[in-house]
Amino acid sequence: MEIPTYDDVISAHARIAPHVHRTPILTSSFLDSLTGASLFFKCENFQKAGAFKARGASNAVFGLDEEKAAVGVATHSSGNHALSLSYAAGKRGIPVTVVMPKTAPEPKKAAVQGYGGRIIECEPSTSSREAVFAEVVAETGAEFVHPYNDPRVIAGQATCAKEIVEELGPLDAVIVPIGGGGMISGCCLTLSAIAPQTKIYAAEPKNANDAHRSLKAGHIIADDAPQTVADGLKVPLKELTWHFVSGHVEDILLSTEDEIVEAMRLIWQRMKIVVEPSSAVPLAAILKNKHNFAGKRVGVILTGGNVDLVKLPWMAA
Amino acid sequence: MEIPTYDDVISAHARIAPHVHRTPILTSSFLDSLTGASLFFKCENFQKAGAFKARGASNAVFGLDEEKAAVGVATHSSGNHALSLSYAAGKRGIPVTVVMPKTAPEPKKAAVQGYGGRIIECEPSTSSREAVFAEVVAETGAEFVHPYNDPRVIAGQATCAKEIVEELGPLDAVIVPIGGGGMISGCCLTLSAIAPQTKIYAAEPKNANDAHRSLKAGHIIADDAPQTVADGLKVPLKELTWHFVSGHVEDILLSTEDEIVEAMRLIWQRMKIVVEPSSAVPLAAILKNKHNFAGKRVGVILTGGNVDLVKLPWMAA
Repeated sequence: MEIPTYDDVISAHARIAPHVHRTPILTSSFLDSLTGASLFFKCENFQKAGAFKARGASNAVFGLDEEKAAVGVATHSSGNHALSLSYAAGKRGIPVTVVMPKTAPEPKKAAVQGYGGRIIECEPSTSSREAVFAEVVAETGAEFVHPYNDPRVIAGQATCAKEIVEELGPLDAVIVPIGGGGMISGCCLTLSAIAPQTKIYAAEPKNANDAHRSLKAGHIIADDAPQTVADGLKVPLKELTWHFVSGHVEDILLSTEDEIVEAMRLIWQRMKIVVEPSSAVPLAAILKNKHNFAGKRVGVILTGGNVDLVKLPWMAA
Repeated sequence: MEIPTYDDVISAHARIAPHVHRTPILTSSFLDSLTGASLFFKCENFQKAGAFKARGASNAVFGLDEEKAAVGVATHSSGNHALSLSYAAGKRGIPVTVVMPKTAPEPKKAAVQGYGGRIIECEPSTSSREAVFAEVVAETGAEFVHPYNDPRVIAGQATCAKEIVEELGPLDAVIVPIGGGGMISGCCLTLSAIAPQTKIYAAEPKNANDAHRSLKAGHIIADDAPQTVADGLKVPLKELTWHFVSGHVEDILLSTEDEIVEAMRLIWQRMKIVVEPSSAVPLAAILKNKHNFAGKRVGVILTGGNVDLVKLPWMAA
């Protein structure tokens, strides 16, 4: 297992700079007064392809040598990594195939195709996804860019925390949604190197609490097809992300579906920005665990903004 | 009739700076490629109280002498000016009464009350609104801050175009939604003084096209209760805004309800920001009149972001 280093993050940042946004950091006096903390929202919902995953995907794609690049890349993804890999491959002008669950939101499928990606559908479970994907790789010979269990991807995601520290100095805490663990691993990598005093919290849906149970148990626990509104967070940890999560994460805070939807709505209503449900899980956790954050300077990563605008979760009832 | 000058704008900018945001200007490579123009979106949806109207209201409220301030302020408004005046009065700690149509969106009513404003309801027509308001003023003696036909308010709104020019230099064109004409009058005031080469376009719903008909006719035409999804744009021009509009506006471009809703959805989907229907009318006009804007640097004022998130217009069907 190759563990990325902070030198890899510095290289990644230079490599991806022409292809991704240095996203803004927003604040909200209303949410500060509601939580008692000073919250700094890193807006990866404004990122290219609508999510932080453009960072890792761009680092992987633009780091390939010419020969490998010509054959193309492939991945499986619940959505945003598929978009991001398609975006990065399109930018470099190389072929890309993505295996996506049938149930992925329509706008994500359309956006993959808009960037020139080829979609192969699978069932909405980890097992089906991995089986279908093995066939795709055997057939195309494409370079596999895993959505998170890949050192190139983690080094790319780690540039997000690097920008936060560059802009704000060391914070008291950072809180990040956890699914497969790519973004939080990137935060662990960067913060342990340049801001080791910052506490790193993960936020996870109670309905997809495999990372929480993994941290308690001391080994990876994977669920096959958890159900949560935070559809970016259904996938399990893998060795590489487990390495970072088990080594650096202070705690994994859980939220119910209702708490996530309410936090999402608060962000839309008060900050006037579009975030997907996964992005709202950290605010839900802060609202539920104010004692951990009150009086602190807290970085909150809003991981993405790719939402099906005709299916908003507070309208379900 | 007192006409505000650019010196009033400079004073207003200094007066309101502690109370309002200097809002960011965003770009979208997708919308640029869709329109063929270089669009610069001034994000007044991120403004205090969720709309540009915080500028004019703050200028009026913080410009009052102590004696008048102590009696308080009052207004009638289709929504955002009500919020903004309540916000500004709350910040100064003075009483505020607002007459609002019964049909105003619930979040706007709740926000007025959240800022400490007192609401008196009227029927959703200009005539009812003005009649009920006359009673309120007679009863309270409060200082009337008209939503747009007020030199203090127009000087405040004019600070928005001032920030655009300071940040981007003179643009080829600026396009602004037109309802009562407060924001576009502010743009006329500022641009005629510091960037006279910039063409000023207004964007209006076809269903509430009184300003368009006024410009053609050469005098103010007012409709009593037009129906449009762009609920901030139902009110008619008045003398002071007519002065600016008739003197400086290049053209008033019309859009259908469907075009407005589609433009609003594009902004949400692609820019990941929450804007209200009124804010989308300029983009609808640009998409429909590409020949006027292609190859040009165009400022687009996103006037507000106060939306009832359970009633999104593309879900009506």
